[in-house]
Amino acid sequence: MANPGLQSQPLASHQNFAIIVAGGSGTRMGASVPKQFLLLGGKPVMMHTIEAFYHSKTNPQIIAVLPDAYHAYWEELCVAHDFNVPHVLVNGGATRFESVKKGLDVIEGSEFDLIAVHDAVRPLTKIGIIDTSFMHAGTHGNAVAAVKSRDTVRQMRSGVSAHLVRDEIYLVQTPQTFQLEQLKSAYQLPYSDRFTDDASVVESAGFSIHLIEGSYGNIKITFPEDLKIAELLLQSQ
Amino acid sequence: MANPGLQSQPLASHQNFAIIVAGGSGTRMGASVPKQFLLLGGKPVMMHTIEAFYHSKTNPQIIAVLPDAYHAYWEELCVAHDFNVPHVLVNGGATRFESVKKGLDVIEGSEFDLIAVHDAVRPLTKIGIIDTSFMHAGTHGNAVAAVKSRDTVRQMRSGVSAHLVRDEIYLVQTPQTFQLEQLKSAYQLPYSDRFTDDASVVESAGFSIHLIEGSYGNIKITFPEDLKIAELLLQSQ
Repeated sequence: MANPGLQSQPLASHQNFAIIVAGGSGTRMGASVPKQFLLLGGKPVMMHTIEAFYHSKTNPQIIAVLPDAYHAYWEELCVAHDFNVPHVLVNGGATRFESVKKGLDVIEGSEFDLIAVHDAVRPLTKIGIIDTSFMHAGTHGNAVAAVKSRDTVRQMRSGVSAHLVRDEIYLVQTPQTFQLEQLKSAYQLPYSDRFTDDASVVESAGFSIHLIEGSYGNIKITFPEDLKIAELLLQSQ
Repeated sequence: MANPGLQSQPLASHQNFAIIVAGGSGTRMGASVPKQFLLLGGKPVMMHTIEAFYHSKTNPQIIAVLPDAYHAYWEELCVAHDFNVPHVLVNGGATRFESVKKGLDVIEGSEFDLIAVHDAVRPLTKIGIIDTSFMHAGTHGNAVAAVKSRDTVRQMRSGVSAHLVRDEIYLVQTPQTFQLEQLKSAYQLPYSDRFTDDASVVESAGFSIHLIEGSYGNIKITFPEDLKIAELLLQSQ
Protein backbone atom coordinates (compact mmCIF):
# COMPACT_ATOMS: atom_id res chain seq x y z
CA MET A 1 0.00 0.00 0.00
CA ALA A 2 1.39 3.40 -0.95
CA ASN A 3 2.17 5.96 1.70
CA PRO A 4 -0.98 8.17 1.81
CA GLY A 5 1.15 11.09 3.07
CA LEU A 6 3.01 11.16 -0.25
CA GLN A 7 -0.21 11.13 -2.28
CA SER A 8 -1.72 14.02 -0.45
CA GLN A 9 1.14 16.37 -1.39
CA PRO A 10 2.18 15.63 -4.96
CA LEU A 11 5.18 17.51 -6.36
CA ALA A 12 4.59 20.97 -7.91
CA SER A 13 1.04 21.11 -6.62
CA HIS A 14 -0.09 24.19 -4.84
CA GLN A 15 -2.80 25.07 -2.39
CA ASN A 16 -5.36 27.83 -2.71
CA PHE A 17 -6.60 29.82 0.25
CA ALA A 18 -9.15 32.54 0.84
CA ILE A 19 -9.22 34.86 3.83
CA ILE A 20 -12.74 36.21 4.36
CA VAL A 21 -12.25 39.24 6.55
CA ALA A 22 -15.08 40.63 8.64
CA GLY A 23 -14.56 44.01 10.22
CA GLY A 24 -15.79 45.72 13.29
CA SER A 25 -19.00 46.16 15.10
CA GLY A 26 -21.10 47.50 12.25
CA THR A 27 -21.93 50.78 13.97
CA ARG A 28 -22.31 52.53 10.62
CA MET A 29 -25.29 50.32 9.81
CA GLY A 30 -27.24 51.56 12.79
CA ALA A 31 -27.95 47.88 13.43
CA SER A 32 -27.49 45.94 16.63
CA VAL A 33 -25.91 43.13 14.62
CA PRO A 34 -22.65 43.55 12.67
CA LYS A 35 -23.36 43.83 8.97
CA GLN A 36 -21.75 40.48 8.03
CA PHE A 37 -24.52 38.76 10.02
CA LEU A 38 -27.49 40.65 8.59
CA LEU A 39 -29.91 38.57 6.58
CA LEU A 40 -29.75 38.73 2.81
CA GLY A 41 -32.29 36.53 1.07
CA GLY A 42 -32.97 34.99 4.48
CA LYS A 43 -29.31 34.04 5.11
CA PRO A 44 -26.47 35.91 6.86
CA VAL A 45 -24.41 38.00 4.45
CA MET A 46 -21.15 36.19 5.27
CA MET A 47 -22.62 32.81 4.34
CA HIS A 48 -23.26 34.06 0.81
CA THR A 49 -19.67 35.26 0.70
CA ILE A 50 -18.17 31.99 1.88
CA GLU A 51 -20.40 29.99 -0.48
CA ALA A 52 -19.20 31.97 -3.50
CA PHE A 53 -15.62 30.85 -2.79
CA TYR A 54 -16.71 27.33 -1.94
CA HIS A 55 -18.61 26.94 -5.19
CA SER A 56 -15.83 28.40 -7.34
CA LYS A 57 -13.78 25.97 -9.43
CA THR A 58 -10.75 27.01 -7.38
CA ASN A 59 -12.52 25.89 -4.20
CA PRO A 60 -9.91 27.37 -1.85
CA GLN A 61 -9.46 26.53 1.80
CA ILE A 62 -11.44 29.20 3.60
CA ILE A 63 -10.23 31.15 6.62
CA ALA A 64 -12.90 33.39 8.12
CA VAL A 65 -11.52 36.17 10.32
CA LEU A 66 -14.07 37.41 12.85
CA PRO A 67 -13.79 39.41 16.08
CA ASP A 68 -13.41 36.96 18.95
CA ALA A 69 -16.60 38.23 20.57
CA TYR A 70 -18.69 36.99 17.64
CA HIS A 71 -17.35 33.44 17.26
CA ALA A 72 -20.04 31.85 19.42
CA TYR A 73 -22.75 33.84 17.65
CA TRP A 74 -21.42 32.79 14.24
CA GLU A 75 -21.41 29.15 15.29
CA GLU A 76 -25.01 29.46 16.43
CA LEU A 77 -25.91 30.99 13.08
CA CYS A 78 -24.19 28.12 11.26
CA VAL A 79 -26.33 25.64 13.19
CA ALA A 80 -29.52 27.64 12.74
CA HIS A 81 -28.95 27.99 8.98
CA ASP A 82 -27.63 24.46 8.53
CA PHE A 83 -24.43 25.93 7.10
CA ASN A 84 -21.85 23.23 6.55
CA VAL A 85 -19.28 24.79 4.24
CA PRO A 86 -15.87 23.92 5.73
CA HIS A 87 -13.92 26.91 7.01
CA VAL A 88 -11.44 27.81 9.74
CA LEU A 89 -12.42 30.53 12.19
CA VAL A 90 -9.71 32.98 13.32
CA ASN A 91 -9.78 35.89 15.78
CA GLY A 92 -9.75 39.32 14.18
CA GLY A 93 -7.61 42.28 15.15
CA ALA A 94 -8.30 45.94 15.83
CA THR A 95 -7.82 46.95 12.18
CA ARG A 96 -8.43 45.24 8.86
CA PHE A 97 -4.65 45.09 8.41
CA GLU A 98 -4.25 43.23 11.70
CA SER A 99 -7.14 40.89 10.89
CA VAL A 100 -5.65 39.86 7.54
CA LYS A 101 -2.30 39.36 9.27
CA LYS A 102 -3.92 37.05 11.81
CA GLY A 103 -5.52 35.10 9.00
CA LEU A 104 -2.13 34.75 7.30
CA ASP A 105 -0.56 33.54 10.56
CA VAL A 106 -2.57 30.32 10.53
CA ILE A 107 -1.57 29.42 6.98
CA GLU A 108 1.32 27.02 6.51
CA GLY A 109 1.92 27.42 2.82
CA SER A 110 4.61 27.02 0.24
CA GLU A 111 5.93 29.27 -2.47
CA PHE A 112 3.49 28.20 -5.17
CA ASP A 113 0.39 28.79 -3.07
CA LEU A 114 -2.17 31.46 -3.86
CA ILE A 115 -4.39 33.39 -1.48
CA ALA A 116 -7.43 35.58 -2.02
CA VAL A 117 -8.44 38.21 0.50
CA HIS A 118 -12.10 39.14 0.38
CA ASP A 119 -14.47 41.36 2.35
CA ALA A 120 -17.02 39.32 4.29
CA VAL A 121 -19.54 42.03 3.42
CA ARG A 122 -19.24 41.54 -0.35
CA PRO A 123 -21.67 38.67 -0.69
CA LEU A 124 -22.54 39.05 -4.38
CA THR A 125 -19.16 38.35 -5.94
CA LYS A 126 -19.51 36.25 -9.06
CA ILE A 127 -17.74 32.90 -9.03
CA GLY A 128 -16.10 33.73 -12.36
CA ILE A 129 -14.29 36.69 -10.83
CA ILE A 130 -12.97 34.50 -8.02
CA ASP A 131 -11.56 31.94 -10.45
CA THR A 132 -10.14 34.63 -12.72
CA SER A 133 -8.41 36.27 -9.78
CA PHE A 134 -6.66 33.02 -8.83
CA MET A 135 -5.68 32.38 -12.44
CA HIS A 136 -4.21 35.84 -12.95
CA ALA A 137 -2.50 35.86 -9.56
CA GLY A 138 -0.73 32.67 -10.60
CA THR A 139 0.57 34.37 -13.73
CA HIS A 140 1.13 37.95 -12.58
CA GLY A 141 1.83 37.58 -8.86
CA ASN A 142 -1.47 39.19 -7.94
CA ALA A 143 -4.91 40.06 -9.30
CA VAL A 144 -7.09 42.80 -7.87
CA ALA A 145 -10.74 43.22 -8.89
CA ALA A 146 -11.62 46.78 -9.87
CA VAL A 147 -14.16 48.69 -11.93
CA LYS A 148 -13.78 51.93 -13.87
CA SER A 149 -15.22 54.94 -12.14
CA ARG A 150 -18.56 55.96 -13.61
CA ASP A 151 -18.28 59.34 -11.91
CA THR A 152 -16.00 62.22 -12.60
CA VAL A 153 -13.33 62.20 -9.91
CA ARG A 154 -11.49 65.01 -8.17
CA GLN A 155 -8.48 64.82 -5.90
CA MET A 156 -8.38 67.19 -2.92
CA ARG A 157 -4.96 68.25 -1.63
CA SER A 158 -4.25 71.11 0.75
CA GLY A 159 -7.80 72.37 0.31
CA VAL A 160 -7.59 72.52 -3.49
CA SER A 161 -9.37 69.98 -5.66
CA ALA A 162 -8.16 68.96 -9.11
CA HIS A 163 -9.84 67.03 -11.89
CA LEU A 164 -8.51 63.54 -12.57
CA VAL A 165 -8.91 61.87 -15.93
CA ARG A 166 -11.90 59.59 -15.39
CA ASP A 167 -10.72 56.83 -17.71
CA GLU A 168 -7.62 56.41 -15.55
CA ILE A 169 -9.56 55.90 -12.33
CA TYR A 170 -10.46 52.48 -10.97
CA LEU A 171 -12.53 51.75 -7.88
CA VAL A 172 -10.99 48.78 -6.14
CA GLN A 173 -13.00 45.82 -4.84
CA THR A 174 -12.18 42.40 -3.55
CA PRO A 175 -11.23 39.60 -4.22
CA GLN A 176 -7.60 40.60 -4.19
CA THR A 177 -5.55 37.48 -4.84
CA PHE A 178 -1.80 37.09 -4.37
CA GLN A 179 1.03 34.62 -4.40
CA LEU A 180 1.11 33.68 -0.75
CA GLU A 181 4.76 34.62 -0.30
CA GLN A 182 4.13 38.05 -1.82
CA LEU A 183 1.27 38.78 0.56
CA LYS A 184 3.09 37.37 3.58
CA SER A 185 6.21 39.43 2.90
CA ALA A 186 4.11 42.59 2.37
CA TYR A 187 2.33 42.08 5.68
CA GLN A 188 5.69 42.31 7.46
CA LEU A 189 5.47 46.08 6.88
CA PRO A 190 4.52 48.25 9.84
CA TYR A 191 0.89 49.42 9.71
CA SER A 192 0.06 52.61 7.86
CA ASP A 193 -3.32 54.31 7.57
CA ARG A 194 -2.69 54.41 3.82
CA PHE A 195 -3.40 50.66 3.86
CA THR A 196 -7.08 50.71 2.91
CA ASP A 197 -6.82 47.38 1.11
CA ASP A 198 -4.35 44.56 0.49
CA ALA A 199 -3.12 45.90 -2.83
CA SER A 200 -1.92 49.07 -1.10
CA VAL A 201 0.09 46.95 1.35
CA VAL A 202 1.58 44.79 -1.40
CA GLU A 203 2.36 47.85 -3.53
CA SER A 204 4.13 49.46 -0.57
CA ALA A 205 6.29 46.35 -0.37
CA GLY A 206 7.48 47.05 -3.90
CA PHE A 207 5.29 44.75 -6.02
CA SER A 208 3.33 46.08 -8.97
CA ILE A 209 -0.42 45.50 -8.93
CA HIS A 210 -2.34 43.71 -11.66
CA LEU A 211 -5.98 44.78 -12.01
CA ILE A 212 -8.71 42.47 -13.26
CA GLU A 213 -12.27 43.39 -14.13
CA GLY A 214 -14.60 43.36 -11.14
CA SER A 215 -18.31 44.02 -11.34
CA TYR A 216 -20.55 46.95 -10.41
CA GLY A 217 -22.85 44.46 -8.71
CA ASN A 218 -20.04 43.29 -6.41
CA ILE A 219 -21.13 45.76 -3.75
CA LYS A 220 -19.93 46.14 -0.17
CA ILE A 221 -22.66 46.20 2.47
CA THR A 222 -21.74 49.25 4.53
CA PHE A 223 -24.88 51.32 4.98
CA PRO A 224 -28.50 50.26 5.55
CA GLU A 225 -29.58 51.02 1.97
CA ASP A 226 -26.79 48.74 0.69
CA LEU A 227 -28.57 45.70 2.11
CA LYS A 228 -31.76 46.63 0.25
CA ILE A 229 -29.78 47.12 -2.94
CA ALA A 230 -28.11 43.74 -2.40
CA GLU A 231 -31.55 42.12 -2.05
CA LEU A 232 -32.53 43.65 -5.38
CA LEU A 233 -29.36 42.48 -7.09
CA LEU A 234 -29.72 39.01 -5.57
CA GLN A 235 -33.27 38.73 -6.91
CA SER A 236 -32.19 39.79 -10.39
CA GLN A 237 -29.34 37.26 -10.54
CA MET B 1 -48.23 104.99 -10.21
CA ALA B 2 -44.66 103.69 -10.13
CA ASN B 3 -43.07 102.27 -13.22
CA PRO B 4 -43.54 98.52 -12.91
CA GLY B 5 -40.45 97.96 -15.05
CA LEU B 6 -38.32 99.50 -12.32
CA GLN B 7 -39.87 97.31 -9.63
CA SER B 8 -39.29 94.10 -11.52
CA GLN B 9 -35.53 94.66 -11.65
CA PRO B 10 -34.42 96.19 -8.35
CA LEU B 11 -30.78 97.16 -7.96
CA ALA B 12 -28.32 94.39 -6.99
CA SER B 13 -30.88 91.69 -7.61
CA HIS B 14 -29.85 88.62 -9.51
CA GLN B 15 -31.52 85.77 -11.31
CA ASN B 16 -31.03 82.09 -10.71
CA PHE B 17 -31.08 79.52 -13.48
CA ALA B 18 -30.84 75.77 -13.75
CA ILE B 19 -29.92 73.84 -16.86
CA ILE B 20 -31.27 70.29 -16.68
CA VAL B 21 -29.28 68.40 -19.26
CA ALA B 22 -30.58 65.17 -20.74
CA GLY B 23 -28.17 63.13 -22.77
CA GLY B 24 -28.48 60.73 -25.61
CA SER B 25 -30.60 57.84 -26.58
CA GLY B 26 -30.22 55.73 -23.49
CA THR B 27 -28.76 52.74 -25.31
CA ARG B 28 -26.88 51.66 -22.18
CA MET B 29 -30.20 51.04 -20.45
CA GLY B 30 -31.27 48.46 -22.99
CA ALA B 31 -34.55 50.34 -23.04
CA SER B 32 -36.46 51.64 -26.01
CA VAL B 33 -37.04 54.90 -24.15
CA PRO B 34 -34.19 57.25 -23.10
CA LYS B 35 -33.53 56.93 -19.39
CA GLN B 36 -34.74 60.43 -18.50
CA PHE B 37 -38.24 59.34 -19.55
CA LEU B 38 -38.37 56.03 -17.68
CA LEU B 39 -40.94 55.88 -14.92
CA LEU B 40 -39.78 56.28 -11.33
CA GLY B 41 -42.58 56.06 -8.81
CA GLY B 42 -44.98 56.24 -11.75
CA LYS B 43 -43.53 59.49 -13.12
CA PRO B 44 -40.79 60.14 -15.71
CA VAL B 45 -37.35 60.51 -14.12
CA MET B 46 -36.82 64.03 -15.50
CA MET B 47 -40.03 65.31 -13.87
CA HIS B 48 -38.64 64.39 -10.46
CA THR B 49 -35.44 66.24 -11.35
CA ILE B 50 -37.20 69.39 -12.48
CA GLU B 51 -39.50 69.35 -9.45
CA ALA B 52 -36.54 69.24 -7.05
CA PHE B 53 -35.27 72.52 -8.48
CA TYR B 54 -38.76 74.01 -8.64
CA HIS B 55 -39.45 73.21 -4.99
CA SER B 56 -36.08 74.51 -3.77
CA LYS B 57 -36.06 77.87 -1.99
CA THR B 58 -33.88 79.16 -4.81
CA ASN B 59 -36.62 78.26 -7.31
CA PRO B 60 -34.46 78.96 -10.38
CA GLN B 61 -35.70 79.45 -13.91
CA ILE B 62 -35.43 76.02 -15.47
CA ILE B 63 -33.98 75.28 -18.89
CA ALA B 64 -34.39 71.65 -19.94
CA VAL B 65 -32.02 70.59 -22.71
CA LEU B 66 -33.32 67.61 -24.67
CA PRO B 67 -32.48 66.15 -28.07
CA ASP B 68 -34.75 67.75 -30.65
CA ALA B 69 -36.24 64.37 -31.56
CA TYR B 70 -37.76 63.98 -28.10
CA HIS B 71 -39.43 67.39 -27.66
CA ALA B 72 -42.81 66.23 -28.91
CA TYR B 73 -42.65 63.10 -26.78
CA TRP B 74 -41.73 65.15 -23.69
CA GLU B 75 -44.64 67.47 -24.30
CA GLU B 76 -46.97 64.49 -24.55
CA LEU B 77 -45.58 63.17 -21.28
CA CYS B 78 -46.16 66.54 -19.62
CA VAL B 79 -49.81 66.42 -20.66
CA ALA B 80 -50.24 62.78 -19.67
CA HIS B 81 -48.72 63.37 -16.24
CA ASP B 82 -50.35 66.76 -15.73
CA PHE B 83 -46.89 68.28 -15.31
CA ASN B 84 -47.13 72.04 -15.08
CA VAL B 85 -43.77 73.14 -13.67
CA PRO B 86 -42.63 76.06 -15.83
CA HIS B 87 -39.53 75.36 -17.88
CA VAL B 88 -37.97 76.29 -21.19
CA LEU B 89 -37.20 73.49 -23.64
CA VAL B 90 -33.98 73.73 -25.68
CA ASN B 91 -32.46 71.47 -28.35
CA GLY B 92 -29.53 69.37 -27.21
CA GLY B 93 -26.23 68.87 -29.02
CA ALA B 94 -24.16 65.84 -29.91
CA THR B 95 -22.21 65.92 -26.64
CA ARG B 96 -23.03 66.95 -23.09
CA PHE B 97 -20.65 69.90 -23.57
CA GLU B 98 -22.56 71.07 -26.61
CA SER B 99 -25.91 70.60 -24.86
CA VAL B 100 -24.90 72.74 -21.89
CA LYS B 101 -23.59 75.35 -24.30
CA LYS B 102 -26.93 75.43 -26.10
CA GLY B 103 -28.67 75.86 -22.77
CA LEU B 104 -26.38 78.77 -21.93
CA ASP B 105 -27.08 80.38 -25.29
CA VAL B 106 -30.72 81.07 -24.42
CA ILE B 107 -29.88 82.81 -21.15
CA GLU B 108 -29.69 86.56 -21.10
CA GLY B 109 -28.10 87.13 -17.76
CA SER B 110 -26.07 89.66 -15.88
CA GLU B 111 -22.90 89.42 -13.86
CA PHE B 112 -24.58 88.61 -10.52
CA ASP B 113 -26.61 85.71 -11.87
CA LEU B 114 -26.06 82.13 -10.80
CA ILE B 115 -26.63 78.95 -12.75
CA ALA B 116 -26.81 75.32 -11.75
CA VAL B 117 -26.15 72.54 -14.24
CA HIS B 118 -27.74 69.23 -13.34
CA ASP B 119 -28.08 65.80 -14.92
CA ALA B 120 -31.69 65.09 -15.91
CA VAL B 121 -31.07 61.51 -14.78
CA ARG B 122 -30.29 62.47 -11.17
CA PRO B 123 -33.87 62.63 -9.93
CA LEU B 124 -33.23 62.14 -6.20
CA THR B 125 -31.22 65.26 -5.44
CA LYS B 126 -32.22 66.74 -2.11
CA ILE B 127 -33.56 70.26 -2.19
CA GLY B 128 -31.09 71.28 0.53
CA ILE B 129 -28.14 70.46 -1.73
CA ILE B 130 -29.62 72.60 -4.50
CA ASP B 131 -30.04 75.60 -2.21
CA THR B 132 -26.58 75.10 -0.68
CA SER B 133 -25.01 74.96 -4.12
CA PHE B 134 -26.53 78.31 -5.09
CA MET B 135 -25.50 79.85 -1.78
CA HIS B 136 -21.89 78.69 -2.06
CA ALA B 137 -21.63 79.57 -5.73
CA GLY B 138 -22.62 83.10 -4.78
CA THR B 139 -19.78 83.25 -2.28
CA HIS B 140 -17.06 81.16 -3.94
CA GLY B 141 -17.81 81.52 -7.65
CA ASN B 142 -18.94 77.92 -7.92
CA ALA B 143 -20.13 74.95 -5.87
CA VAL B 144 -19.84 71.36 -7.03
CA ALA B 145 -21.59 68.52 -5.21
CA ALA B 146 -19.29 65.58 -4.46
CA VAL B 147 -18.99 62.66 -2.05
CA LYS B 148 -15.88 61.01 -0.66
CA SER B 149 -15.01 57.74 -2.29
CA ARG B 150 -16.00 54.77 -0.17
CA ASP B 151 -13.77 52.53 -2.25
CA THR B 152 -10.03 52.36 -2.47
CA VAL B 153 -9.02 54.04 -5.71
CA ARG B 154 -6.21 53.33 -8.15
CA GLN B 155 -5.00 55.41 -11.07
CA MET B 156 -3.93 53.57 -14.22
CA ARG B 157 -1.32 55.23 -16.40
CA SER B 158 0.68 53.57 -19.18
CA GLY B 159 -0.54 50.18 -18.02
CA VAL B 160 0.65 50.66 -14.43
CA SER B 161 -1.83 51.28 -11.62
CA ALA B 162 -0.96 53.24 -8.49
CA HIS B 163 -2.77 53.60 -5.18
CA LEU B 164 -4.34 56.99 -4.49
CA VAL B 165 -4.99 58.18 -0.95
CA ARG B 166 -8.69 57.45 -0.49
CA ASP B 167 -9.40 60.41 1.74
CA GLU B 168 -8.29 62.73 -1.03
CA ILE B 169 -10.68 61.28 -3.62
CA TYR B 170 -14.12 62.75 -4.32
CA LEU B 171 -16.70 61.38 -6.71
CA VAL B 172 -18.34 64.29 -8.42
CA GLN B 173 -22.10 64.67 -8.86
CA THR B 174 -24.42 67.43 -9.91
CA PRO B 175 -25.73 70.06 -9.17
CA GLN B 176 -22.70 72.07 -10.19
CA THR B 177 -23.53 75.71 -9.72
CA PHE B 178 -21.58 78.70 -11.03
CA GLN B 179 -21.60 82.42 -11.41
CA LEU B 180 -23.13 82.72 -14.85
CA GLU B 181 -20.26 84.73 -16.26
CA GLN B 182 -17.75 82.14 -15.05
CA LEU B 183 -19.61 79.30 -16.73
CA LYS B 184 -20.24 81.27 -19.92
CA SER B 185 -16.59 82.24 -20.25
CA ALA B 186 -15.47 78.65 -19.59
CA TYR B 187 -17.77 77.33 -22.29
CA GLN B 188 -15.94 79.45 -24.84
CA LEU B 189 -13.15 76.84 -24.66
CA PRO B 190 -12.88 74.35 -27.52
CA TYR B 191 -14.30 70.93 -26.65
CA SER B 192 -11.99 68.37 -25.03
CA ASP B 193 -12.80 64.78 -24.12
CA ARG B 194 -11.42 65.57 -20.67
CA PHE B 195 -14.62 67.56 -20.12
CA THR B 196 -16.69 64.91 -18.31
CA ASP B 197 -18.52 67.53 -16.26
CA ASP B 198 -18.88 71.30 -15.95
CA ALA B 199 -16.30 71.67 -13.20
CA SER B 200 -13.64 70.26 -15.51
CA VAL B 201 -14.53 72.89 -18.12
CA VAL B 202 -14.51 75.72 -15.60
CA GLU B 203 -11.24 74.49 -14.09
CA SER B 204 -9.66 74.40 -17.54
CA ALA B 205 -10.64 78.04 -17.92
CA GLY B 206 -8.50 78.84 -14.87
CA PHE B 207 -11.06 78.97 -12.05
CA SER B 208 -10.59 76.96 -8.88
CA ILE B 209 -13.39 74.58 -7.94
CA HIS B 210 -15.26 74.66 -4.63
CA LEU B 211 -16.67 71.30 -3.54
CA ILE B 212 -19.79 70.96 -1.41
CA GLU B 213 -21.14 67.84 0.19
CA GLY B 214 -23.36 65.82 -2.11
CA SER B 215 -25.18 62.67 -1.09
CA TYR B 216 -24.67 58.97 -1.76
CA GLY B 217 -28.37 58.76 -2.55
CA ASN B 218 -28.02 61.34 -5.34
CA ILE B 219 -27.55 58.62 -7.92
CA LYS B 220 -27.40 58.84 -11.68
CA ILE B 221 -29.73 56.54 -13.59
CA THR B 222 -27.42 54.95 -16.13
CA PHE B 223 -27.99 51.21 -16.03
CA PRO B 224 -31.21 49.19 -15.58
CA GLU B 225 -30.43 48.28 -11.95
CA ASP B 226 -30.04 51.99 -11.14
CA LEU B 227 -33.74 52.55 -11.73
CA LYS B 228 -34.61 49.79 -9.26
CA ILE B 229 -32.21 51.27 -6.73
CA ALA B 230 -33.77 54.68 -7.28
CA GLU B 231 -37.23 53.19 -6.60
CA LEU B 232 -35.92 51.81 -3.33
CA LEU B 233 -34.34 55.12 -2.33
CA LEU B 234 -37.49 57.00 -3.31
CA GLN B 235 -39.62 54.73 -1.11
CA SER B 236 -37.30 55.18 1.87
CA GLN B 237 -37.33 59.00 1.57
